[in-house]
Amino acid sequence: MNTRLWIGLVVLVTTAAAGADTPPGTELDGRFDALIQPTELSAWMRQLAAEPNHVGSKHDRANAEWILAQFKAWGWDAHIETFQVLYPTPIRESLTLLGAHPFKATLTEMPIPGDATSYRIRDALPAYVAYQGDGDVSAPLVYVNYGMQEDYRTLQRLGVSVRGRIVIARYGGGWRGLKPRLALEHGAVGCLIYSDPNDDGYAKGEVYPKGAERPATGIQRGSVADMTLYPGDPLTPGVAATESAHRLAVADAPTIQRIPTLPISYADARHFLESLGGRVVPTAWRGSLPITYHTGDESVRARLIVRSEWSLKPIYDVVAMMKGSTYPEQWVMRGNHHDGWVFGASDPLSGQVALLSEAKAFGALAAAGWRPKRTLVYLSWDGEEPMLLGSTEWVEAHADELRHKAVIYINTDSNARGLLRVSGSQAFQHLADEVAASVTDPETGVPVSARRRAALLLAGQEPGASDSDKDWGKVAATRAHSLPIAAMGSGSDYSPFIQHLGIAALDFEYAGEGAWEGVYHSSYDTWEHHSRHVDPGFAYDALLAKTVGHAVARIADAELPPQRFADFAEEVASYVAEVKTLADHRREAADVQAQALALDAYRLADDPTKTHGSPSPLQPVPYLEFAPLDNGASHLMRAARAFDAALSEHGESLSAQVRAQLFEALRTVDQLLAPEVGLPGRSWYKNLIDAPGRYTGYGAKTLPGVREAIEEERWADADRYAKLTGEVLDAYAMRLETATELVLGTVR
Amino acid sequence: MNTRLWIGLVVLVTTAAAGADTPPGTELDGRFDALIQPTELSAWMRQLAAEPNHVGSKHDRANAEWILAQFKAWGWDAHIETFQVLYPTPIRESLTLLGAHPFKATLTEMPIPGDATSYRIRDALPAYVAYQGDGDVSAPLVYVNYGMQEDYRTLQRLGVSVRGRIVIARYGGGWRGLKPRLALEHGAVGCLIYSDPNDDGYAKGEVYPKGAERPATGIQRGSVADMTLYPGDPLTPGVAATESAHRLAVADAPTIQRIPTLPISYADARHFLESLGGRVVPTAWRGSLPITYHTGDESVRARLIVRSEWSLKPIYDVVAMMKGSTYPEQWVMRGNHHDGWVFGASDPLSGQVALLSEAKAFGALAAAGWRPKRTLVYLSWDGEEPMLLGSTEWVEAHADELRHKAVIYINTDSNARGLLRVSGSQAFQHLADEVAASVTDPETGVPVSARRRAALLLAGQEPGASDSDKDWGKVAATRAHSLPIAAMGSGSDYSPFIQHLGIAALDFEYAGEGAWEGVYHSSYDTWEHHSRHVDPGFAYDALLAKTVGHAVARIADAELPPQRFADFAEEVASYVAEVKTLADHRREAADVQAQALALDAYRLADDPTKTHGSPSPLQPVPYLEFAPLDNGASHLMRAARAFDAALSEHGESLSAQVRAQLFEALRTVDQLLAPEVGLPGRSWYKNLIDAPGRYTGYGAKTLPGVREAIEEERWADADRYAKLTGEVLDAYAMRLETATELVLGTVR
Repeated sequence: MNTRLWIGLVVLVTTAAAGADTPPGTELDGRFDALIQPTELSAWMRQLAAEPNHVGSKHDRANAEWILAQFKAWGWDAHIETFQVLYPTPIRESLTLLGAHPFKATLTEMPIPGDATSYRIRDALPAYVAYQGDGDVSAPLVYVNYGMQEDYRTLQRLGVSVRGRIVIARYGGGWRGLKPRLALEHGAVGCLIYSDPNDDGYAKGEVYPKGAERPATGIQRGSVADMTLYPGDPLTPGVAATESAHRLAVADAPTIQRIPTLPISYADARHFLESLGGRVVPTAWRGSLPITYHTGDESVRARLIVRSEWSLKPIYDVVAMMKGSTYPEQWVMRGNHHDGWVFGASDPLSGQVALLSEAKAFGALAAAGWRPKRTLVYLSWDGEEPMLLGSTEWVEAHADELRHKAVIYINTDSNARGLLRVSGSQAFQHLADEVAASVTDPETGVPVSARRRAALLLAGQEPGASDSDKDWGKVAATRAHSLPIAAMGSGSDYSPFIQHLGIAALDFEYAGEGAWEGVYHSSYDTWEHHSRHVDPGFAYDALLAKTVGHAVARIADAELPPQRFADFAEEVASYVAEVKTLADHRREAADVQAQALALDAYRLADDPTKTHGSPSPLQPVPYLEFAPLDNGASHLMRAARAFDAALSEHGESLSAQVRAQLFEALRTVDQLLAPEVGLPGRSWYKNLIDAPGRYTGYGAKTLPGVREAIEEERWADADRYAKLTGEVLDAYAMRLETATELVLGTVR
Repeated sequence: MNTRLWIGLVVLVTTAAAGADTPPGTELDGRFDALIQPTELSAWMRQLAAEPNHVGSKHDRANAEWILAQFKAWGWDAHIETFQVLYPTPIRESLTLLGAHPFKATLTEMPIPGDATSYRIRDALPAYVAYQGDGDVSAPLVYVNYGMQEDYRTLQRLGVSVRGRIVIARYGGGWRGLKPRLALEHGAVGCLIYSDPNDDGYAKGEVYPKGAERPATGIQRGSVADMTLYPGDPLTPGVAATESAHRLAVADAPTIQRIPTLPISYADARHFLESLGGRVVPTAWRGSLPITYHTGDESVRARLIVRSEWSLKPIYDVVAMMKGSTYPEQWVMRGNHHDGWVFGASDPLSGQVALLSEAKAFGALAAAGWRPKRTLVYLSWDGEEPMLLGSTEWVEAHADELRHKAVIYINTDSNARGLLRVSGSQAFQHLADEVAASVTDPETGVPVSARRRAALLLAGQEPGASDSDKDWGKVAATRAHSLPIAAMGSGSDYSPFIQHLGIAALDFEYAGEGAWEGVYHSSYDTWEHHSRHVDPGFAYDALLAKTVGHAVARIADAELPPQRFADFAEEVASYVAEVKTLADHRREAADVQAQALALDAYRLADDPTKTHGSPSPLQPVPYLEFAPLDNGASHLMRAARAFDAALSEHGESLSAQVRAQLFEALRTVDQLLAPEVGLPGRSWYKNLIDAPGRYTGYGAKTLPGVREAIEEERWADADRYAKLTGEVLDAYAMRLETATELVLGTVR
């Protein structure tokens, strides 16, 4: 599911080039790495991706059972855990351009000569997005660019309404599921989503099979359930979708979209777009079809039919454990989903085969006498694609146990040739650095950390680099600091861990060179495409296994806490500065806009043949009560620096017993970030530091209770969440102070 | 010739919305405006644009004679002044894609049904750029994006060389003539320039005839002579191209390009671009053809033949005078060219018919008894398109007289529906404000100044608005300041006045709504296109006549100096701040790049399948001797404020004699900005405040002696020109101090 469209600073991780300050890989790293075989990963992917493996397919269940068998064969204590989730199975999709020159959309992906898998689509899902609204609508078409909030503001200025119409939006700009939701909010009755060749097709590079990019008939499936309210089964928010769970009626489930929605290819979309009249679109709205893009007017109508069968379906999570020798009740968790939209080679099987390879290697090490100190929990999720079903339901089912046992959850998903990207809990930046220094990049022969550092340095040199990029570029050149990792939004199975329970989480991915985006969620995401264009030789999928394996082993065997809290405190301080600047900028924008409206400036400056009227007035922005947030962030910074200093000074001299006490005191500290109250209007999301944005989807919003309140002009919420977030930071700081006292009390 | 691609802040002018602070139009304005008849402008354009009217054509000469006759009929003292200039007449152009699937470029513009003029191309110039190098070359093709300096840096990083190849560049990104020059500097043997539909075609809007944009076969002709060295006849730099002038040999003329160069349409270009292999281009290089853009490799070759007949041709400037009643030796000059590339309706005849309408109106006023106090000199230039031939040779011929008599030169060129844009000598901002307040916008019914103010306010609100935009937005909302006008680069006939002699100049244009860019320099720039898509009803061409007429009349009859020098001093202060920041930024960039090279960061961060190697090292940037520049700017600011205050306080109470002395003291002050030394390596350009950029062409570089020295790593020149420019500013300030003394000495 994860698009991984990393906007802004591409945040990867590394530590130092080979040199005096390089932490060497451990002896265990070396033994582990010797067990990772790229040819095995290739063979496993080929088998798992041989047939369509979406939720409800035969091959999905067979894959779960095969994975279970492997874990067992490798010595793990494994079982399948099943949930019953609402899953709409498509029955009928139809899209027709009406009028004098009618055209019926093919909704068909043509197989690719030379890619045998792409022919095996008999049982595949059609053009389809999950949890759309069923319906049969005929209405005029309107092109809405990406269909995001700012696009509707632009339409208002152009004098174009979508009320009673079917919108056609291109993929990109924000998460897919926002497109039908925002369309409905603005009165539309249907929603088409297509892949424009500018964002996803020939403009980016050669199309498959010659290159990696999306062919003309490629269709991006996906989920449009309103993930920003809650993920998982739409009928069982907050509780596991067991046989006996209390369920909402389908009609009452708030995450299901209400209007028919259909994804189409650019081969189909062209027929609709080139027929549109109305206004010529603004420059930023142009795609790469060889046409003049227009908004559309009343004259061009289409008929859209979407019907599904709405019933419960079983999903199959594979859960495998290797008991810890010293702390069996402390769980180091690591997961990746196994369901795809069609064959799912890159997404998710490239990460799945890395996970399997790690599991086999740990099994072999265990057979040779090694045991992890803490329990390893390997999780092969089902139903991630429709809406993180397998992970969310499992987390909801085991919430109490997880609160007590969790150390961390480490996730992967799609993987490719390229540089390492890490996102998640920033107290683990230092660990991520160490891990990145322990693996060697196949293309350059340097530590993965060195490529990451080089990329960060150059990002600071790009024209238009932000001050933050430049600062990090300088840091990268000095090798003096843990490098930043990105805040987590959503789009993969870490979400229920970090955002619902506040369990520390990390996500690892190699990306940026081998491109799987061009076949994303299409029937062209095959073993053939992956092995030809995404990771030839499976070098980076094997590297992912080594990287994650090193992280898992380090945390499982750690004596001292692996966190460095100043890294986290600095991130939080930067978020606080951002939300304050955001309020100031919006205040200024509202003031200037009020002046402009008073002067009738929009009408006067506009070309009267091209625009129609002024924007909606912004509310004046009051001065907000940021003091609790400032105090909390400052408290956190002091406490974090004191702890890091104490650990650095005295950590190695602590007794084994105190080390264990210290680890335990900080094992659950991130759960303090996720108080029961949750975010306004979407209390499933409890983490007050990171959340998927209500209007960005996958994209993270940091300090979301405050930031989104400012963005949405909810001033009382902004004040309230500044206070709540400040309290959370205070509690976190106090936990660190207790831990510091434990260190210093011991050595005094 | 003027592309008017106004990059960055779109600098227009106005003063205030209708209100207490609006200077009312004068009584003369009202009488003048009543004489401007849009239907006349339309009829004149139709006649002048009826046949191809490029230099050397029959219709060009006929137009000059017809214009002369009109001036005479309207009571002006008029004559034709002729020069003999080198002008290459095309003999043969041919372009062929070689190899297995050969294609011969059509190089042909198909006539447009419904546009009768577009069929009258028997005597038209073919696909052609003037002052290209003749030749016959066969070589591999390389796509170089816009063919600007940064594009060659990108090619270096991609590992692609143009040596021995033919480059294909798209129009845009910088002036046309830079493309063959930079191609040659990098070793290329030929240059194609095409109009990509992204920048100039269907991506922008409907193509002609349905809309205004460039049809598939449209070709942009133009000049590629190296204007950045000197404009005018390539054989007679600095002196008039009279019969007897000393001339360079053609082979020695440094402004003539050395490699064959040809402009082509996107219909032709597609065949070449889609055949290219090699690397997929970076995102910013993509056009809107429905192909994957590649750089090209050795496998795709083309043959390019260009032959011309190089001989002297006559050009015909029409010079018309109306003698001043009080100050006959003071000239208020106003010009617009009459030659086009084909029919030249929008460019230049839309401005030419405004000029004629003004001349007729002044003639009628004179017949009714009015006389201007100063002499009006109306100039209808020939040969602007090939290289400002008519204006440059005339200015060179009359340089001494102009130094003594010039008050100001006011230029126009193409014109369209839209907002007023003004560029030029910033001491005249206040006058431009006043003029803009004296004319009413046809679309909105408000003063032109109010639309300008509204646009400036909204530009400050755009996402990504610069601090300067925001500041000006606030100024626009307060109505408390003369609004900024843009610095002059080149591209029209003001250049020899302001940049060679330092004569104050202004350029006026309405633009932004009716688009002539889509037919720019093609056979589709017809009366039909102009009256349908650029200025229906000739409302804005008539408005241009009123606007310029008001400016001419105000200056011709002014008793007190029309300048306000603080406006200019503030601009200069901002330029000084910019060049200092530029040096700092480049110093930092050089430092960071040195670190990156030391760490081998380019190799490590790059995808090894896509890039090849590190950039050329930047020189370390020394700290430069900016003090003379700072002191000069500060001196200017003090002197300017003192003068403006004295004039404001005492101007109205001065005697007529002192007023005349004061006007005279400041009439030639801008000539102090253009000392004999000129710019490094191109001493024809003498103005040290504004010049066309050596690597931007039309785009202005302010403080060019300093700024370009920093950009080109010529540190000694930077120090030297900081000193020279400081001296010029000191001299200017001292002249203002003398004038202030004149005011205060009188009233003491």
